[in-house]
Amino acid sequence: MTQMESARKGILTDEMKTVAAKEHISEDKLMQLIAEGKVIIPCNKLHKCISPNGVGSALTTKINVNLGTSRDMASLDEEMKKVQKAVDLGAEAIMDLSSYGDTRKFRKMLTSECPAMIGTVPIYDAVVYYHKALMKITSDEWIDIVRMHAEDGVDFMTIHCGINRETAVKFKRNKRQMNIVSRGGSIIFAWMEMTGNENPFYERFDEILDICREYDVTLSLGDACRPGSIFDGTDPAQIEELITLGELTKRAWEKDVQVMIEGPGHMPMNQIAANMEIQKTLCHGAPFYVLGPIVTDIAPGYDHITSAIGGAIAAQNGAAFLCYVTPAEHLRLPDADDVKEGIIAARIAAHAADIAKGIPHAADWDMKMDKARHDLDWEKMFETAIDPEKARAYRNSSKPQKEDTCSMCGNFCAVKNMNRILDGENISIFDE
Amino acid sequence: MTQMESARKGILTDEMKTVAAKEHISEDKLMQLIAEGKVIIPCNKLHKCISPNGVGSALTTKINVNLGTSRDMASLDEEMKKVQKAVDLGAEAIMDLSSYGDTRKFRKMLTSECPAMIGTVPIYDAVVYYHKALMKITSDEWIDIVRMHAEDGVDFMTIHCGINRETAVKFKRNKRQMNIVSRGGSIIFAWMEMTGNENPFYERFDEILDICREYDVTLSLGDACRPGSIFDGTDPAQIEELITLGELTKRAWEKDVQVMIEGPGHMPMNQIAANMEIQKTLCHGAPFYVLGPIVTDIAPGYDHITSAIGGAIAAQNGAAFLCYVTPAEHLRLPDADDVKEGIIAARIAAHAADIAKGIPHAADWDMKMDKARHDLDWEKMFETAIDPEKARAYRNSSKPQKEDTCSMCGNFCAVKNMNRILDGENISIFDE
Repeated sequence: MTQMESARKGILTDEMKTVAAKEHISEDKLMQLIAEGKVIIPCNKLHKCISPNGVGSALTTKINVNLGTSRDMASLDEEMKKVQKAVDLGAEAIMDLSSYGDTRKFRKMLTSECPAMIGTVPIYDAVVYYHKALMKITSDEWIDIVRMHAEDGVDFMTIHCGINRETAVKFKRNKRQMNIVSRGGSIIFAWMEMTGNENPFYERFDEILDICREYDVTLSLGDACRPGSIFDGTDPAQIEELITLGELTKRAWEKDVQVMIEGPGHMPMNQIAANMEIQKTLCHGAPFYVLGPIVTDIAPGYDHITSAIGGAIAAQNGAAFLCYVTPAEHLRLPDADDVKEGIIAARIAAHAADIAKGIPHAADWDMKMDKARHDLDWEKMFETAIDPEKARAYRNSSKPQKEDTCSMCGNFCAVKNMNRILDGENISIFDE
Repeated sequence: MTQMESARKGILTDEMKTVAAKEHISEDKLMQLIAEGKVIIPCNKLHKCISPNGVGSALTTKINVNLGTSRDMASLDEEMKKVQKAVDLGAEAIMDLSSYGDTRKFRKMLTSECPAMIGTVPIYDAVVYYHKALMKITSDEWIDIVRMHAEDGVDFMTIHCGINRETAVKFKRNKRQMNIVSRGGSIIFAWMEMTGNENPFYERFDEILDICREYDVTLSLGDACRPGSIFDGTDPAQIEELITLGELTKRAWEKDVQVMIEGPGHMPMNQIAANMEIQKTLCHGAPFYVLGPIVTDIAPGYDHITSAIGGAIAAQNGAAFLCYVTPAEHLRLPDADDVKEGIIAARIAAHAADIAKGIPHAADWDMKMDKARHDLDWEKMFETAIDPEKARAYRNSSKPQKEDTCSMCGNFCAVKNMNRILDGENISIFDE
């Protein structure tokens, strides 16, 4: 049984128990949310080493990290080290976007060693795996890759089933600034254009559901028409595809298959809340997994910041799952530093949103920091910081005159001066 | 005459002409907004080299950079280089928070050489200048420093006049997590506690107005009770002080003195829009100048990101002016790299908000980038980027196999593949 089927039958799984405890939520409430499709626990039956996590807007916001081998970074061991580092830094999910070498071997390493949820995009892998011209890949071959990934223990898969012949027409009729920027979306669109066939991920959706049901793979319904420019945000192609994804969500739920929906993309800030609301109605409350939204297009090198702004607003308004974006986005494959910067920025966005949404106990972390700040307890501040290493290094690089203050304010330290004056001491400032 | 008095009398100043042209707004409309106090042009009559800018929520969002000498960084020339760099990076305002050495000399260098608006905090300077114990500084001496700064050509001054005996009572009665974290606020609070006297910046507000009117110094009404913890956001002390600042705004406007209001601070995301709205009513539409808001307290080392999130939301909802926050915030005095990171993050927040608010022509910049992206014109992308140097360095560090793509996607480049498929070409991907 999938987690959804169990929930619908009132059977509490070990995964549900774990998630309920992590989230400070009752098991009954969690089971109800899973039964309704509002929370998912992506957890392939064959991924034995997983530490399960729930995804849904009633829970803490989760983050995903994209990694994987490529022509430039082909070492499986090196890539596994990055995965471990990403998990240590707080990523709840790893998407394996490998595009080079023995992708199956790496995928199996992930599902046998990594405690995070593992996601993949079968469409990328098919291109690498079959090693032939795109238009020669057959409908059966696309579906076979989905089955292979399920057998390999993958917890969730991005399936680009929303860009069918009908939505492709809408896309072509309504010109965009940046066309399709989803890699998988562009591949299947090109395949459809070249072969004249319907998208097999759409046409054979029932077969995909049967595979997902067997292994309890969560479907991550991909947004081929994710806007790649702020001028394409919330346009006909994007919304038309979302309607299709909503229809497919219902079909998945009929077979007890867990679903999340992938979303924008590039988008002006003022459209984000509305997009979260539209997704909620069109996709019946299925968790929303967003990339960005990137709120301005002018900042390559800083897209971890443009997407932290958008991601925080999205999560506050209902997105459940944020895909990290690194400073390297739009420029190159991220290196280890970029991965770290991207993870921290995504976690900040997720956490800020969790506070704003009033997720139980989310702000406890901040209270711990504020108590340390009030007491000028630097060691405790470092321990509590999202990146203790960086916080410590900053302060150590610029020692203040007085041990209890920092070099920013020195004698002017308001925290210190207020603590003293409220204790009835006199303060002098200039010569202390 | 101040800019406000001129506007009220229907006299178009050169500064108004410059600002109207920069902002794509009619001179009549601008004059109206200045007359009503909704836009300010901080511009001391003695600051001859200024390139004037308007501040108000109907205009593009401006950013401020805090610099100044300190015990650790005492060289005036080094600090002037940082100022120049900040202006080159796009800062419209420099606040000189010097706390060491010949502060007057540096201040005069700024107002005779720097084209950005220059702001100061007389209260800090008084402590350095008089070089005696805090409680020995007299009421006259506090006011004399304000006059000196006006004579030195400063365009705007933070005056901590909102924390009077009445608001101090409210502050003490409603315990906070982090007390007062404003440096100036803590100083004047301590002075009041130690001397038993009323805050001279409040008590002698009319004298300050006379000084400001004479030189056309804009008052930046300081928020001593700016929350320093997300748990103190929108609390009685903060709001009580804002009421006082609103009352003082009216008094300033009666004398044609330009005013902006300083605001939070640390604050959960969900409170920000409400705070912008409250400020608008209590302060009668005077421009809001915010520090942050920092949306979570757990990220020392990354507070340029926590404040980019808060600042973007604040500006979208009405804040007109963002004070940059650097990664060094809460840890040490920022170095040159921190200053750059802080400026870029603040500019991203400001620009994202300007797009969201529909500021005329704000999104032109993004359109230029998107055209370059669509055409895979890398040189044009670099030129258009907010930080051309970083964008170029990233791509150059990881050259792709194909010159037109980048190492992120290589042959999978959706932009390239879509351009080709829509042109009727076949694509293959795996072996190209």
